[in-house]
Amino acid sequence: MKYSFKNDYSSIALDEILDKLRECKDEQNIGYGEDTHTEIAKNKIRDKIKSNSDIYFIAGGTITNMIAIGSILKPYEAVIACDSGHINVHETGAIEGLGHKVLYSDNVNGKLTCDGIERIVNAHTDHHMVKPKMVYISNATELGSVYTLSELRALYNCAKKHDLYLYLDGARLASALAASDIKYEDYAKYTDMFYIGGTKCGAYFGEALVINNDELKNEFQYYIKHFGGMIAKGFVTAIPFEVLMDGDRYYNIGKKENECAQYLTQGLKKLGIKFYSESLTNQVFPILPNNILDELYNDYLYEYWVKGEKESVIRFVTSFTTEKKHVDGLIETISRLIKQN
Amino acid sequence: MKYSFKNDYSSIALDEILDKLRECKDEQNIGYGEDTHTEIAKNKIRDKIKSNSDIYFIAGGTITNMIAIGSILKPYEAVIACDSGHINVHETGAIEGLGHKVLYSDNVNGKLTCDGIERIVNAHTDHHMVKPKMVYISNATELGSVYTLSELRALYNCAKKHDLYLYLDGARLASALAASDIKYEDYAKYTDMFYIGGTKCGAYFGEALVINNDELKNEFQYYIKHFGGMIAKGFVTAIPFEVLMDGDRYYNIGKKENECAQYLTQGLKKLGIKFYSESLTNQVFPILPNNILDELYNDYLYEYWVKGEKESVIRFVTSFTTEKKHVDGLIETISRLIKQN
Amino acid sequence: MKYSFKNDYSSIALDEILDKLRECKDEQNIGYGEDTHTEIAKNKIRDKIKSNSDIYFIAGGTITNMIAIGSILKPYEAVIACDSGHINVHETGAIEGLGHKVLYSDNVNGKLTCDGIERIVNAHTDHHMVKPKMVYISNATELGSVYTLSELRALYNCAKKHDLYLYLDGARLASALAASDIKYEDYAKYTDMFYIGGTKCGAYFGEALVINNDELKNEFQYYIKHFGGMIAKGFVTAIPFEVLMDGDRYYNIGKKENECAQYLTQGLKKLGIKFYSESLTNQVFPILPNNILDELYNDYLYEYWVKGEKESVIRFVTSFTTEKKHVDGLIETISRLIKQN
Amino acid sequence: MKYSFKNDYSSIALDEILDKLRECKDEQNIGYGEDTHTEIAKNKIRDKIKSNSDIYFIAGGTITNMIAIGSILKPYEAVIACDSGHINVHETGAIEGLGHKVLYSDNVNGKLTCDGIERIVNAHTDHHMVKPKMVYISNATELGSVYTLSELRALYNCAKKHDLYLYLDGARLASALAASDIKYEDYAKYTDMFYIGGTKCGAYFGEALVINNDELKNEFQYYIKHFGGMIAKGFVTAIPFEVLMDGDRYYNIGKKENECAQYLTQGLKKLGIKFYSESLTNQVFPILPNNILDELYNDYLYEYWVKGEKESVIRFVTSFTTEKKHVDGLIETISRLIKQN
Repeated sequence: MKYSFKNDYSSIALDEILDKLRECKDEQNIGYGEDTHTEIAKNKIRDKIKSNSDIYFIAGGTITNMIAIGSILKPYEAVIACDSGHINVHETGAIEGLGHKVLYSDNVNGKLTCDGIERIVNAHTDHHMVKPKMVYISNATELGSVYTLSELRALYNCAKKHDLYLYLDGARLASALAASDIKYEDYAKYTDMFYIGGTKCGAYFGEALVINNDELKNEFQYYIKHFGGMIAKGFVTAIPFEVLMDGDRYYNIGKKENECAQYLTQGLKKLGIKFYSESLTNQVFPILPNNILDELYNDYLYEYWVKGEKESVIRFVTSFTTEKKHVDGLIETISRLIKQN
Repeated sequence: MKYSFKNDYSSIALDEILDKLRECKDEQNIGYGEDTHTEIAKNKIRDKIKSNSDIYFIAGGTITNMIAIGSILKPYEAVIACDSGHINVHETGAIEGLGHKVLYSDNVNGKLTCDGIERIVNAHTDHHMVKPKMVYISNATELGSVYTLSELRALYNCAKKHDLYLYLDGARLASALAASDIKYEDYAKYTDMFYIGGTKCGAYFGEALVINNDELKNEFQYYIKHFGGMIAKGFVTAIPFEVLMDGDRYYNIGKKENECAQYLTQGLKKLGIKFYSESLTNQVFPILPNNILDELYNDYLYEYWVKGEKESVIRFVTSFTTEKKHVDGLIETISRLIKQN
Repeated sequence: MKYSFKNDYSSIALDEILDKLRECKDEQNIGYGEDTHTEIAKNKIRDKIKSNSDIYFIAGGTITNMIAIGSILKPYEAVIACDSGHINVHETGAIEGLGHKVLYSDNVNGKLTCDGIERIVNAHTDHHMVKPKMVYISNATELGSVYTLSELRALYNCAKKHDLYLYLDGARLASALAASDIKYEDYAKYTDMFYIGGTKCGAYFGEALVINNDELKNEFQYYIKHFGGMIAKGFVTAIPFEVLMDGDRYYNIGKKENECAQYLTQGLKKLGIKFYSESLTNQVFPILPNNILDELYNDYLYEYWVKGEKESVIRFVTSFTTEKKHVDGLIETISRLIKQN
Repeated sequence: MKYSFKNDYSSIALDEILDKLRECKDEQNIGYGEDTHTEIAKNKIRDKIKSNSDIYFIAGGTITNMIAIGSILKPYEAVIACDSGHINVHETGAIEGLGHKVLYSDNVNGKLTCDGIERIVNAHTDHHMVKPKMVYISNATELGSVYTLSELRALYNCAKKHDLYLYLDGARLASALAASDIKYEDYAKYTDMFYIGGTKCGAYFGEALVINNDELKNEFQYYIKHFGGMIAKGFVTAIPFEVLMDGDRYYNIGKKENECAQYLTQGLKKLGIKFYSESLTNQVFPILPNNILDELYNDYLYEYWVKGEKESVIRFVTSFTTEKKHVDGLIETISRLIKQN
């Protein structure tokens, strides 16, 4: 059987989450997030982020971003991202579908910079242009890099200076937590809104949207329902977070994923392989010769990132199911294929 | 412990579905609906509806309706529903949020009529008004009634005569299947698109959107992603349908729910209680004196439908977990409360 | 030559407006409403309404309604109108195109009532439904009737009681001013926003949108541009209002139109003709036998309102160019045709 | 009195257009573009473009672009422009407001290139990204440059190769016609849709949207009304085109504007002044020392384009009212100011 390094959403969920489902199978719960599991999961998150934020559990990442951005912006307002930002490239125009322009500047190793924000703000000065009103970043980024605490703080201060909201997409927050010095509570302090990813961090699905800024809390459930994100069985979206937020479980998922990814990176570097970005998290982007790629795919699934003429950037992702033995196998296979070709 | 007749989405899922999750827990699957579970679930549905329709699994009912309607209509086109239709009342303007007017006519026992459709079509004749282009119905309806096969056929013919698409919301299709003479294959024949409800029929979440009309199949995944309905772990949405579509399981869920609901209706009628609508399915709408309602809520959860001064319409819903003993308890309690008050 | 009673927008403009254009033809003006004509026209309006409201000149009625409603409502909020309201029927779903539901109740002689508003407000109580947030009325109404001052005040108070904004569409405000006891300054007092119609009141085009409520003034030009309503030559939209707002000219246009329309109504009533609505303004809706309608159209243009089997409602509109002699001719022709048939 | 080189929309209209208004002042016309002036203006355009295209007269440029793009694209489809394109920068997100992403590539002297289009097409390959479906260019461009016939043909062929529609914004088409070898009929041949600008070419307002591709003609008036662009007095929008399309009048406006602009360019070059772009049309972009700019503004209005620390790019625009004497005065003033400072 092939092992997949294609992504971190190929297995159903942590065993503990499936156990919890079975444990609760005879319950009757109130719908639409008014239930006890939701309450418990919210409180566990509030404990971790040390903030009395509002929290909602939503089915997937794109719709979470839509609800967040669509709830913050007025029709003529725009969101600033970096060019490689998920909302700019990989959401089939969902944000524009809500009526908002995504303004973008060049990324630096996958990251948005204060400079980039200010260039955009300074270029948008009157009502013949959109008005930038929020900043979108993700941690970890699309290229596996992470913001440091001082970078996050600087972006937040820059946003506030220009009267912008800061929103952080945490699809892979477990991995970011384990790779950066930004702690849970910093996300509550230095963002106006952010989400804690479930789908890509061991849940069967679900993201926890956290609203820190009081101005943005009002009538939020209207937005969720209007944009199509209200789930009748809210408790089913909450249960994974009830489990993930137990002790250090969520952090440890990221930690283990990152360790496997760094182990892989070291192994490939020893083979002389170069990388497309500097990643500290569970996504790594080696540049491999095209002539081994088809054969490699017979044993290991991966994703193409940038196809080149002689060599290509591909992406390997470790997940909560990845073990060192899988990585060892992958390194050996690549090593063998390189020698053979 | 209180028993809840509040709705049919208060328990997690059928045991068989939870078993299946556990059975598959060590698998790695391709994302975004390209996996084997999705393929199997689609084929089971195709067998049942005897049609080579395109099928997609989507997280919830509102977003499924948004994707269906948003994919069919051009900006200036409108959808016809009855006044009590879910998209008209209970989706927080999600359809209008996509830019489309919902035109509605009076319901007859919860149902849209050909007459109602034609009155609307005839009133919209030029480009100073929206252009009606599709019909929305649900089976079962919001009031628990069901369309018969001859009614569905007549609506479909009426739609085709006026160049309208017919879309059917099957949030409670299990219940409708067991209460009406419309069979699976009729839904493929007499609608352009419909969905088979999971969330309210025993799945932890998920709806199966079925596209019968070839004109509507093209580039459909773009719509799903653009409107925010694309789920990374597609297999998690498909697995419940893999289980539900086994043999007569889905039909039997509806059958059992309906039997409990009819048993409840008969019991309440014997107490002289009148009903707001004629329901053959798992939602029933008795009219109860206000002076017993608070006490009743101590033992059984229900939902208010229409609050009156002396008496109110309330809704009881049976679900896949409801047993006759629960219904017996409910009838007894109401009987006792009526006598006491 | 046929004379047209089809509408009040069939002639280019008042002579005085065309004279003014010629008078200013050698000027250079700043664009986008920053010019002197715009300033003068605004000040003339402010004098009349006795309020320091913000004022913008916009090309046409539908886009003015879009900008007004689109600037007031959040995505999940809705506007309340009566069933016959222009935004509900005759704008090809432009308001829904912005994402907002139009909630409507039955009209009473073309008018929305406090009762109607409250029924809608009371039916929309939670986040599974849209949230009503503004009221739309027009004066004169689509059926030629007008609100009285006490009715307007009552609607305004009702709106405020339920935390709704009141917006008034004044496409035919000249006619309403001359037919009702509501004065210019009352429109500033008892609405949050309204517009003074130009297109249907003697201007070549243009409407003056007046924002009375301070909360709604902020960054308004962004909305105008974003929704497509910003005109480069703002002074061309302002000049008609510079002329119309001179002394009583605007009021007198309405007065003369109404007099012609009432004269027509009296003449037709003497012939035993009945009317579809009670109109005090420049639109009247007689019910005429079908067998004279084709012949009548040879001499006079009119519009069908409701086609019946034996008789139909048609609409006659008087405009700033209508003289009593045109009305005399119309009455005589109808009288003759009735006798002949 | 100051003379304004700020833009080409500071004077009301050509004398001949104002004369025509007065000539027609006693007419009654049918509304909404069903009148004789509209018919005549359309036919004059059809004669010039040698094509039986559908034509609509719309109030302004932004709303024309909205209607064009909004009628062509499905929700998930996107339009390709160059970075400096009007829809990308100067329309306050109006296109995104309709739900569509504007994809852009670097301009080359204000122009979009086939290379730029292909880079974007090749980067958008699946349903996780928007689907590019049309190309937007303007002639003349925002930087005063023009496409040649061979460039237009190449862009059109590139578009067709990739199944994209080509739409051309002709806000300053008079100027482009006089500066490039593209003739009227080429715009009908090598675009799917384009508009002939009125507002910036001597009309009081109005643009003529021309639909060449039969696929795009269907039910177009629904789009116009739905997006807010339907003008009741259609004849008022058509009359300027009835006049402008007489003989070579429209072309000659552009010719004279261009001559004044080139005369200005030559004069400034003699003073050693450099330019930001190579313009052949009525907009020129000299780079002037900041220390003369305030004083210059005392005598001549202009617009800032790029503010620099020591020198800035400003824009001078010639219009249908500009005479050589105005240009002489401007050159002299700049010459004097440079010497003094």
